[in-house]
Amino acid sequence: MTTYTPPVEDMQFLLHEVLKVSESDVPGYDELDRDSTAAILEEAGKLASEVLAPLNAVGDREGCRLENGVVITPTGFKAAYDQMAAGGWMGLDCDPEYGGQGMPYVLNSATGEMFVAANMAFNMYQGLTHGAYSAIHTHGSAEQKQTYLPKLVSGEWTGTMNLTEPQAGTDLGIMRTRAEPAEDGSYAITGTKIFISAGDHDLSQNVIHLVLAKAPGGGPGTKGVSLFIVPKFLVNEDGSPGARNNLSVGKLEEKMGIHGNATCVMNYDGAKGWLIGDLHKGMRAMFTMMNEARLGVGLQGYAQAVAAYENALTYAKERLQGRDVTGVKNPDGPADPIIVHPDIRRSLMDQKSFIEGARAFTFWGAHLIDRSKRLDDQDAEGLISLMTPVLKAFQTDKGFEMAVQAQQIFGGHGYIEEVGVSQFVRDARITMIYEGANGVQALDLVGRKLAQDGGKHVMAFFDMVKTFLKENEGDAELKAGFLDPLKAASKDLQSAGMFFMENGMKNPNAALAGSNDFVHLFGHVCLGLMWARMAKAAKDSLAAGRGNADFLNAKIATGRYYMARQLPATGLHLARITSGAEPVMALDVAGF
Amino acid sequence: MTTYTPPVEDMQFLLHEVLKVSESDVPGYDELDRDSTAAILEEAGKLASEVLAPLNAVGDREGCRLENGVVITPTGFKAAYDQMAAGGWMGLDCDPEYGGQGMPYVLNSATGEMFVAANMAFNMYQGLTHGAYSAIHTHGSAEQKQTYLPKLVSGEWTGTMNLTEPQAGTDLGIMRTRAEPAEDGSYAITGTKIFISAGDHDLSQNVIHLVLAKAPGGGPGTKGVSLFIVPKFLVNEDGSPGARNNLSVGKLEEKMGIHGNATCVMNYDGAKGWLIGDLHKGMRAMFTMMNEARLGVGLQGYAQAVAAYENALTYAKERLQGRDVTGVKNPDGPADPIIVHPDIRRSLMDQKSFIEGARAFTFWGAHLIDRSKRLDDQDAEGLISLMTPVLKAFQTDKGFEMAVQAQQIFGGHGYIEEVGVSQFVRDARITMIYEGANGVQALDLVGRKLAQDGGKHVMAFFDMVKTFLKENEGDAELKAGFLDPLKAASKDLQSAGMFFMENGMKNPNAALAGSNDFVHLFGHVCLGLMWARMAKAAKDSLAAGRGNADFLNAKIATGRYYMARQLPATGLHLARITSGAEPVMALDVAGF
Repeated sequence: MTTYTPPVEDMQFLLHEVLKVSESDVPGYDELDRDSTAAILEEAGKLASEVLAPLNAVGDREGCRLENGVVITPTGFKAAYDQMAAGGWMGLDCDPEYGGQGMPYVLNSATGEMFVAANMAFNMYQGLTHGAYSAIHTHGSAEQKQTYLPKLVSGEWTGTMNLTEPQAGTDLGIMRTRAEPAEDGSYAITGTKIFISAGDHDLSQNVIHLVLAKAPGGGPGTKGVSLFIVPKFLVNEDGSPGARNNLSVGKLEEKMGIHGNATCVMNYDGAKGWLIGDLHKGMRAMFTMMNEARLGVGLQGYAQAVAAYENALTYAKERLQGRDVTGVKNPDGPADPIIVHPDIRRSLMDQKSFIEGARAFTFWGAHLIDRSKRLDDQDAEGLISLMTPVLKAFQTDKGFEMAVQAQQIFGGHGYIEEVGVSQFVRDARITMIYEGANGVQALDLVGRKLAQDGGKHVMAFFDMVKTFLKENEGDAELKAGFLDPLKAASKDLQSAGMFFMENGMKNPNAALAGSNDFVHLFGHVCLGLMWARMAKAAKDSLAAGRGNADFLNAKIATGRYYMARQLPATGLHLARITSGAEPVMALDVAGF
Repeated sequence: MTTYTPPVEDMQFLLHEVLKVSESDVPGYDELDRDSTAAILEEAGKLASEVLAPLNAVGDREGCRLENGVVITPTGFKAAYDQMAAGGWMGLDCDPEYGGQGMPYVLNSATGEMFVAANMAFNMYQGLTHGAYSAIHTHGSAEQKQTYLPKLVSGEWTGTMNLTEPQAGTDLGIMRTRAEPAEDGSYAITGTKIFISAGDHDLSQNVIHLVLAKAPGGGPGTKGVSLFIVPKFLVNEDGSPGARNNLSVGKLEEKMGIHGNATCVMNYDGAKGWLIGDLHKGMRAMFTMMNEARLGVGLQGYAQAVAAYENALTYAKERLQGRDVTGVKNPDGPADPIIVHPDIRRSLMDQKSFIEGARAFTFWGAHLIDRSKRLDDQDAEGLISLMTPVLKAFQTDKGFEMAVQAQQIFGGHGYIEEVGVSQFVRDARITMIYEGANGVQALDLVGRKLAQDGGKHVMAFFDMVKTFLKENEGDAELKAGFLDPLKAASKDLQSAGMFFMENGMKNPNAALAGSNDFVHLFGHVCLGLMWARMAKAAKDSLAAGRGNADFLNAKIATGRYYMARQLPATGLHLARITSGAEPVMALDVAGF
């Protein structure tokens, strides 16, 4: 049986010592004083650890089932969902005009980490709903907003994203789902969508599907795609769910993990749908959901590592096996706890230093979203747009890797399903795949985001690193342990960017062959920057006699580990990138 | 549905162009001419692809079940097992005196790869039996050999290894299972053993358990441990299975993978057992099985990657999605096959270059075993003893990573169990854990094997690399693509060894903190050496106009990829190693 302990102290440190949220000029941040955020985090943590975490293994074991066309969720999910909805957690950062609490996104990310770490499959129902909320909030008509948003915010209804079709995954341009205009202004949607998370279930009264389809008159490829609102139950005049729409669950998929979430094949047989946003401009609206979803998946990646790490740490402290080679630590026991062994310690430090770095990166990203949305800060928007694929791909690749490392600490016990840690590995695995497989994120970064707005945002990123280095170069301890490694890693990133610029124009494959390495290189530099900032904040706090000295010293030691043992990976990624396309493309297809 | 195609051409290349087996002085190798090995490999490949592979998903889906104390294997396993036994595959490399075919171990490794790639869970029944055969063959009395070996070789009976107990995994010294001497010369074995693969099943008439237990008068820790033969059914005078022994299956574990293999909790309640080997020297006898098992697990690691890769390659050629940025490749289709995309190609090359390198490393290791056993070559024995932890840990860590990469190529489809590729990932996961978790392998390498016989074997390894470099330095093409990278990687390995020597004496943690990185560094150098040898062999064959030029050119291109994109990882591992113990051990336990 696994457990979950909410990392409130670390989150408070990030909010108040690193991001210094209550000193910020972002509207709404003034309410985020230490006590307020502590109270919210404690409350969310309680829900996560006491209600959601115990249902995690239940969801994995029972899975969802399809009975007479309706999906039944695992035992306890409905009660937990109702409790979450009643607590207002579903609409924590949503618009107060529609019943939301209007809290900043950064706080939503913190509570979100807790919910996801405790029970990822469960939290996806709410996560998808939030995506639908955002798309309608941004692109919907006033009437659509009034009809759908209050119900999505309250959790009475949930939402989904319908993009993928059997023959069209990454390549949405070849989708076949059609939208035929009807006389009443609606559209008849016909087609099959697959991999629809939370596609159907018994948690809410209605499911609001956002469906991409091709309406007549659109161009070829993704240009001809529009987005439609297709509710499971048509909405009556009074706002209540009415007649069943012509859509059905064709199949419930058996998956490697996230068994508690219903992954559906959805069949639309002339279902009634309403255009949202502009005709033939559906991709733009979809990307509102998609970008949000990608940040959410990046969060899932490290949140699963958090859950796995916490349980591995407990096990490493309790499991007695072998003796510390430098001297017995538990003379009264038959053996020492395995945490004494350097390779176990190495693994725990890998996990811990990644997790805390990723948490900082995610909170920083959420802060940029707040700046972008609440201050209309274009620079912040450009920066988070650039870093979204990094957040998604790096954190999910690494999060999975760390969950695997956590499982490894359990030895043979980690392979036994009853122990529970393997679920984190199986659940984490999907994060590398969905909302754009990580290879697609790499393509997005190298093929699009890097050069966006003339490369302005990546330049801004480098400037930020440079400024931080310059401002702190007088601190000898920070310089040796953090600034020098960060400088070297940042230089590797610049060299890689330069290589793409010099070679990618004449041969796009020279850049694309290095895209996966570039995402990882970039991710390491981001985490290196986060660690340098956290180390500085910890040192400042210590100097001011503020906070828990043990926590702050551990923070600095963990950061030193990341800089010494993880950050040097940038050199390897650069070496691979600069080897170019030739080794990658040398074999023709027949040569495989 | 996954499929399996036996890589006969690549195996033939290794046997005849790289290892040049039929020119070898090893007794029995003179029978391994091209036609003979081709015939055997074709036959094994047929069994693997037509009989075992179709049962792989069946085993995963059905799993084993425990009914009235007896384990029932999945549908079809018994018939396939009988077919394998009838074909003589169980005793391919076993002693002809006991009914074996006496073939070299290198050939057994080749056919073993096929069987494991096709169905790992199934093949474990036979793999464990082979381990029991080896322990009895090496340490058993003449009577024990006569009683057990013919039945194990024929497959009529199977074997197991019983080491682990709930409180004693890596640390066997704290085991509790007792052996009380009886008047008839046997022992009464009492205790509980866990994680017993193939612990019970319906494939054979009898199960011969080899059980570690403590007999009176032994010292503390592993020194007091002895090994016992404990058959499920006591053997009658005429050699037939008789009365049921006092042992039972306490539980069948639900695991992340290898569902087709029965992982049992075994309860021994005064079961009758017979000492094998010397009293209180059971660990030595156990290590006979263990070393063999570790090589077998190293093989499993890459064999699962083989299976995953083959299916990913097929998918990458068939799945149409997106267009080649350098020009449309499939103008008549809605999109190009995804193999055109550089990041897909990068992933396939990662997999292919690892797999072929690991196959060469495994075959070379098997060849060293043959030299050691058939020529009593002490140098060969020392070298394979040194490399066993590398083969086990590096190949399983990487094999799993490559299976994950293969799964990634399938996008969302890879997460759906019906597609089948996730089984390779779940099955491969155990290889990093059992037969000594990879951290234990790293400890074995750094803490024991490196310094064995005064460091003689690692010196011999470096000499071998140096000699190869020197002999071939005149070949400019080989030098740039293979020798120079190998030289640099080998230098990294030497530097790491030097760091351990200089720092490990005063602080053992300085070496142990880098043990995991050292295994990977060593593994890369081994694969680098393999690739350099293969490239040379391919070039020689091309120059002599021998063999399939397309295959040989692809071999060289694949090797160039490994040297350019994988081998540079040695630098990162060295950087981590030389950062020493300080970052790893900086936090005290309370600081986590």
